[in-house]
Amino acid sequence: MRQLILFTLLILTSITTQALEAPPLQMAALKNLTLESGGVLKQAKLGYRTAGKLNAAGDNAILYPTWFGGSSKDMFNYGAIDPIDTSKYFVIVVDAFGNGVSASPSNHKNFPAITIGDMVQAQHQLLTKTLGITQLYAVVGTSMGGMQAFEWITRHPTFMRKAISLVGSPRLDTYDRLLWQTQLEAIALAEKAGDIQAANKVVAMIDALALFTPEYHARRTPVSQAQAFIHTTQTSDKRDLRDKAAQLEAMLSHDISRNFDGSMAKAAAAVMAQVLSIVDLQDHMVTPRPAIRFSELLGAKTLELNTYCGHISSACAGDEINQAVRNFLAAP
Amino acid sequence: MRQLILFTLLILTSITTQALEAPPLQMAALKNLTLESGGVLKQAKLGYRTAGKLNAAGDNAILYPTWFGGSSKDMFNYGAIDPIDTSKYFVIVVDAFGNGVSASPSNHKNFPAITIGDMVQAQHQLLTKTLGITQLYAVVGTSMGGMQAFEWITRHPTFMRKAISLVGSPRLDTYDRLLWQTQLEAIALAEKAGDIQAANKVVAMIDALALFTPEYHARRTPVSQAQAFIHTTQTSDKRDLRDKAAQLEAMLSHDISRNFDGSMAKAAAAVMAQVLSIVDLQDHMVTPRPAIRFSELLGAKTLELNTYCGHISSACAGDEINQAVRNFLAAP
Repeated sequence: MRQLILFTLLILTSITTQALEAPPLQMAALKNLTLESGGVLKQAKLGYRTAGKLNAAGDNAILYPTWFGGSSKDMFNYGAIDPIDTSKYFVIVVDAFGNGVSASPSNHKNFPAITIGDMVQAQHQLLTKTLGITQLYAVVGTSMGGMQAFEWITRHPTFMRKAISLVGSPRLDTYDRLLWQTQLEAIALAEKAGDIQAANKVVAMIDALALFTPEYHARRTPVSQAQAFIHTTQTSDKRDLRDKAAQLEAMLSHDISRNFDGSMAKAAAAVMAQVLSIVDLQDHMVTPRPAIRFSELLGAKTLELNTYCGHISSACAGDEINQAVRNFLAAP
Repeated sequence: MRQLILFTLLILTSITTQALEAPPLQMAALKNLTLESGGVLKQAKLGYRTAGKLNAAGDNAILYPTWFGGSSKDMFNYGAIDPIDTSKYFVIVVDAFGNGVSASPSNHKNFPAITIGDMVQAQHQLLTKTLGITQLYAVVGTSMGGMQAFEWITRHPTFMRKAISLVGSPRLDTYDRLLWQTQLEAIALAEKAGDIQAANKVVAMIDALALFTPEYHARRTPVSQAQAFIHTTQTSDKRDLRDKAAQLEAMLSHDISRNFDGSMAKAAAAVMAQVLSIVDLQDHMVTPRPAIRFSELLGAKTLELNTYCGHISSACAGDEINQAVRNFLAAP
C-alpha cells in the first residue's frame, strides 16, 4: 500500500504545488484519558506537528487528524496539507492512536481497544490542555481523518467554525464493513499460525483491491506488468499488524449517531459547523453513501466526484479537490 | 458465496422461466490424458449431465462447461441452461476438473496442477471417445466456463460453429490476478497454520467483495443488516480449499495466446467460430477488457452491459442476457 500511496504522491506532486517538508515531530504526554469502553488510558503519548502560527485572536487554528495507517509526517510528505495556506492558518496535524507514533499496541503496554471518539478526545485534550487552544477555525481530514472530522462536529459542536471530510464517513456502510472485516479475518488467521506479521501480504493485497477501482488498474498496469505490481504490493507494507487491527476496530465501531439514539437526523441537528464533504462515487474503500446522506441531513455542501481513481480520488482530481478546500476555507 | 449465488438464483428464477431440474449425473473414466505440464493424468473421472437429444445429423450438440467452483448440477439449478432450448439442442454440461465432482485434489490421489487447456482436452476426449460427437453446434460458458469457451475456439477451431462467453476472458487482466492471488495467499496462510480450511472465511469474503459492485451492496443491504450478511458470507461456503486452489491456479495460468507466440491477434486469426461475448463494464471479478479487446480482434459481437450487479450481471440484466443468447443461437 505504501507503494501505491507513493505512486499517488508522485501524481499529486506533479499536479499540485510542491509538498511541504514535514515540521519536527512533537510528543505530548496525555493525562489520564477515559475511554468510551470505560477504561482509562494512562500517560498515553500523542505525536503532532505544527505549521504556521497561531494569530493574536487565536482564531486561525486548523486541526488535521491522520488517515488510516498514516502519520503526521505522511500528511505533509504526501501533499495532504498543500491546500491549507500555512502563512494564514496554524495547522496542527495529530497522529491518531494506533498509527505507531502515538500510543499504539506496538509501543504501549496493554494497549486497550480504542474508538474514533477516543482519538478525538485525545486531540481535544492536546488542544485545550497542552496548546491552550479552545477554538478551531476548522477540522480537516481525509479518509479515517474525515471520520474523525464527523466525530468532532457532533462531539464538540461549538469548537470549530468549519469542517471538511475528504472521502470520510459518519459510519461505515455494508461494503466497507465487509472489506475491513476481511482484513481482520486474515490477521486472525495469521495469529492462529503464531505469526501475525504473516498476514501482511494478504492485508496489503486487500488494500490494493479497494484503494483504486478495477478500471484504474486496467488503465495503468498492462497485464505484462501484473506480477511486478503484485509483488510490490505484497512486500511494500511492513507495519505492525497489531496497530493496523486497532485502527480497523476503531473504524468498524465508528458511528456518530451512537450518542443520538442511533439517529443520524438527531446527530445532524447537533452540528453547528459549516461542513464540506468530498466523496467519490467510485470509492470502494470508504463508500460514499453515508457521507452523502449525512450532508443531505445537514443541508451541507457535497462535492461528488466520479473518478476511476476511487478512494484515491486525489490522483484523478487533485486540483479540483484542493481548489474546493481552499475556497471553502476562504469563504466567510 | 453459495448464499450469494442462491440469492442470484432467486432473482433469476423470478425473471426468467423456471430453472430446469438437473438430469442425472453421469461419470466417464478418461483414458490417459496428457497435461500441458507434460504429466499424465491417469483414469481421471469426468462428471457430466445431458439434456435434450442428439439429432440424426449430429449437428445440434451444445457443450456447457462449469464456472469456478460450480458443478453440472449448479448449471441447471441456477438457471444457466435456461436460454438453451433443450427441445432443439442436445446440451452436455461437463464438470470441470477441480470442482469436487470430476477429478480434483479432494478425490484424486496426487492430483497434479491443471490448466484451462487441460479441462478442454478432457472435454474433447469425453465428446469424441465417450459420446461419439465430433462436431459441436456451440460452446457456451459463464465466467470460468467462458474462459474454457475461449480456449476451445483457439484449440479446436473447426470443432464448433458458434461460441458464447458470458463474463469470461481469454486471459485474466491485472486486477483479476491481484484478486485471485489474494485468495491463494490466504489459503497459503491457512496451510501455514496447519488447517487449510481455516481460510474458508477469508476466501468467501474476498469472493463477496468482488462478485457484485460496492453499489450493489449499498442498494441491497442496509447497514443494520451488515453483520448478518457478513456472517452468512463467512459461513456459507465449506468447499475443499485444495479444489478451489487448483481451479484458481488454472485460471491464473489461462492465456489463449500462449500457443500463438503470445499474440492475441494471431490467436484471433485462428478462430473460425462465430463468437458472442457478453461482458459487464462493472465486473470486478473477471474484468472485461481482455474479452472486449479479443472480440475487437475477431470482429465479433460484444454485448457490453453496465450494471451495478457486476460479475453477477444476470441479477440485473438476466432477461437481456438470455434473449441475446437465444438470438445468437437461433441465427443462421
